[in-house]
Amino acid sequence: MVLLPHEGFTVNREGHLELDGFDLVELAERFGTPVYVASERRLKANFRRLREAFRKAYPGETVIAYAVKANYTLAIIRLLLLEGAWMETFSGPELFMALAAGTPPERIVLTGGSRLEKDFREALEAGVGLIVVDSPSELARLNRAAGSLKVKASILLRVNPAIQVPTHPAIATGVAGSKFGVDLASGAAFQAFKEALNMDWVNPVGVHTHIGSRILKAEPFVEAAQRLADFLVELNRELGFEASYLDLGGGFGIPYHPEEFSCPLNLEELAGKVSQAIVGKLEGAGLRLPTLILEPGRSLVGDVEILLARVGNVKETPQGKIAFLDASTNHLLPVLYTGQYFELWPANKADKPPEETVTFAGPLCFTGDVIAVNRRVPKIEPDDVIVVFSVGAYCKSVYSFHNAQPRPPSLLLSEHGVEIVQRAETLGDLAARDRIPPRLYRGETP
Amino acid sequence: MVLLPHEGFTVNREGHLELDGFDLVELAERFGTPVYVASERRLKANFRRLREAFRKAYPGETVIAYAVKANYTLAIIRLLLLEGAWMETFSGPELFMALAAGTPPERIVLTGGSRLEKDFREALEAGVGLIVVDSPSELARLNRAAGSLKVKASILLRVNPAIQVPTHPAIATGVAGSKFGVDLASGAAFQAFKEALNMDWVNPVGVHTHIGSRILKAEPFVEAAQRLADFLVELNRELGFEASYLDLGGGFGIPYHPEEFSCPLNLEELAGKVSQAIVGKLEGAGLRLPTLILEPGRSLVGDVEILLARVGNVKETPQGKIAFLDASTNHLLPVLYTGQYFELWPANKADKPPEETVTFAGPLCFTGDVIAVNRRVPKIEPDDVIVVFSVGAYCKSVYSFHNAQPRPPSLLLSEHGVEIVQRAETLGDLAARDRIPPRLYRGETP
Repeated sequence: MVLLPHEGFTVNREGHLELDGFDLVELAERFGTPVYVASERRLKANFRRLREAFRKAYPGETVIAYAVKANYTLAIIRLLLLEGAWMETFSGPELFMALAAGTPPERIVLTGGSRLEKDFREALEAGVGLIVVDSPSELARLNRAAGSLKVKASILLRVNPAIQVPTHPAIATGVAGSKFGVDLASGAAFQAFKEALNMDWVNPVGVHTHIGSRILKAEPFVEAAQRLADFLVELNRELGFEASYLDLGGGFGIPYHPEEFSCPLNLEELAGKVSQAIVGKLEGAGLRLPTLILEPGRSLVGDVEILLARVGNVKETPQGKIAFLDASTNHLLPVLYTGQYFELWPANKADKPPEETVTFAGPLCFTGDVIAVNRRVPKIEPDDVIVVFSVGAYCKSVYSFHNAQPRPPSLLLSEHGVEIVQRAETLGDLAARDRIPPRLYRGETP
Repeated sequence: MVLLPHEGFTVNREGHLELDGFDLVELAERFGTPVYVASERRLKANFRRLREAFRKAYPGETVIAYAVKANYTLAIIRLLLLEGAWMETFSGPELFMALAAGTPPERIVLTGGSRLEKDFREALEAGVGLIVVDSPSELARLNRAAGSLKVKASILLRVNPAIQVPTHPAIATGVAGSKFGVDLASGAAFQAFKEALNMDWVNPVGVHTHIGSRILKAEPFVEAAQRLADFLVELNRELGFEASYLDLGGGFGIPYHPEEFSCPLNLEELAGKVSQAIVGKLEGAGLRLPTLILEPGRSLVGDVEILLARVGNVKETPQGKIAFLDASTNHLLPVLYTGQYFELWPANKADKPPEETVTFAGPLCFTGDVIAVNRRVPKIEPDDVIVVFSVGAYCKSVYSFHNAQPRPPSLLLSEHGVEIVQRAETLGDLAARDRIPPRLYRGETP
């Protein structure tokens, strides 16, 4: 029997897996495969649980700014907006997606790493609420951009606490040598903040950090919160500055492997310990509590969306059985770049025990296009519908076009039924930006 | 001074790098960055050199079928078509792109790994010339598909020679345990071929293999050719079959690292040795020479296209200097999944010697977005234009959307001037497939 990642999944009398009461085998039949399927119920539950945990634990205000990069499906952004989320957008295109979903600009936190004056001008013209500045040279550019528009920019300074972050190196950010933020320990962050306070068109209102992604323990966040709180105490003591915001970033992990299902990140514990760290430091120094900003992506959307794929060929090789899916590593790119594990199971055999070992490959023309190696599953046959669980974060949003495979549609499940929230990409879409110079139509070598 | 990958690059009096006489700094200024730039001259030269090498060496016919997956820009497909190329398309979408560029269907070799009856029917309806079949179950499906249309399908059987392939494991295909082809040594390939000969709607006309990608030595190709030739001799001896085609696939490597510039794959040597292997075996057995099909991708387009990017922020960290580009690993995905090396240099400082060590990062919101680590380059400053060399293969075609970064435009340089052959993706394009259910516009939590 399949170990299910959350209680929205059930098994019906036909042995089919259901999500929120929708038969996944039927959905695959009706909408074709591959197809992404998201649960509105789970999305709301994830948001509400995180909000409640911090409401209870932190005596100040808490803002949850959804990290749009995780999944920028407009319907998902819109749903979180209606729940009360702010939006964290890293880049101009993400800012556009947040605005296109109807986000009020004052509820947007704009982060970034290497922006030019024109990028800052566009953000200021759009009325973005808070701009997170990554380096002294960004600070200078923002000051010039704001000055040219005669508007004062409210900013948070991103600092690098250079702590130990227990995750894959490619997604650890708050570590020594990372490309992000201004170094805290060397005094560089203090110096940058002091400069910011003296600038004409910049209004520093707090500090920001983001330590990494897929972190399943509370401790690194607590350590980061302590460093930020210490920094606020120092800024107050040395410069008389009092912060309105402390932005702890995101990076809250979710279980992907069944072995992690029993030890997820405990959000209530996280909220309690983080709050304690901040409140202890700041109240000890007689400072008022800033609004705490969190920037969760994966923890809000990761287990909200699944991918349905169908088995095509099944092949016996001297090295074992390979089942080819119509979905590929294009749909699950983290498999390629961080070796991420995704759990999967035949939706039409949800009540069956594992009885064989199968490798699941995509249909693409390269050997590395393998989604899952040597999984214990029920007997796999052509036309089985495979559910790949918890693909809501950083799968659709980093889609890759190997073999010109067009992007699948996305469905949203709710009490309103099944809604298509992203249509399938067409072959015509693939060629939509192409132009063959007319001279090449003459049919002779030019 | 920069070591240049081919003679199309020159340095002008201003110290700017030129490609085919076009000043790359000016192109960056005029068209913005990032931007892809392709050389029509180099594309034709690459095709002609490979064709001449095999024309001289192989006494039978040679067909060069361009592996569309490497770069499916329609103008590039069209240019190769006008040179006389056939097209190798792996999937339905690639087939569409080849047809959209005007390829006559009879000049298309369709490969694939896990196709359903409907996929084969579409290919047969389009009149595709040759279908490469990957497994016995594909064979059965193709026979049914062809039968339902009452057309006879000309096929090549893809075999796995299970040889040693000196390349990155993710792109080695003709090795034991690969998901591709039918095993040769075990007799499975012979059995499948025999079955194919007895099928009503399948007309076997030859054999196919593809051993991997980025191979810089002739030997593996020679070994694969020997195995295929032995197989043809066996098929003739046992079944009286005489082949019209021997398809050796592609995988011819190109130099990426300056250390490889002096020892590229020698195409003339390759052609000579491969021909010798085939001719020796087949003439020895008294067989006529089949048409030799090659499926090059990278070796035709790899060094044809460059990426121009601009330096934004430059940051000193305790671990060294980091220059942020406006291009990212989205544009150079092989950096992430096989750690591929791409050479780069400031186009506006092409006459300067290296004087510092710089890491080049992309602007994306993850630590792994680093294009090149610790490169010796001239002093790097904001606004420098960086050329990333030899990005023509498997960069644009596997583009990834991290941080919703839209795809850049593509330029083609020729005696006809600069032509835009792919327009820039717009922010509107990013949201073009999205639909927010109207109920979510009511502004209240549904």
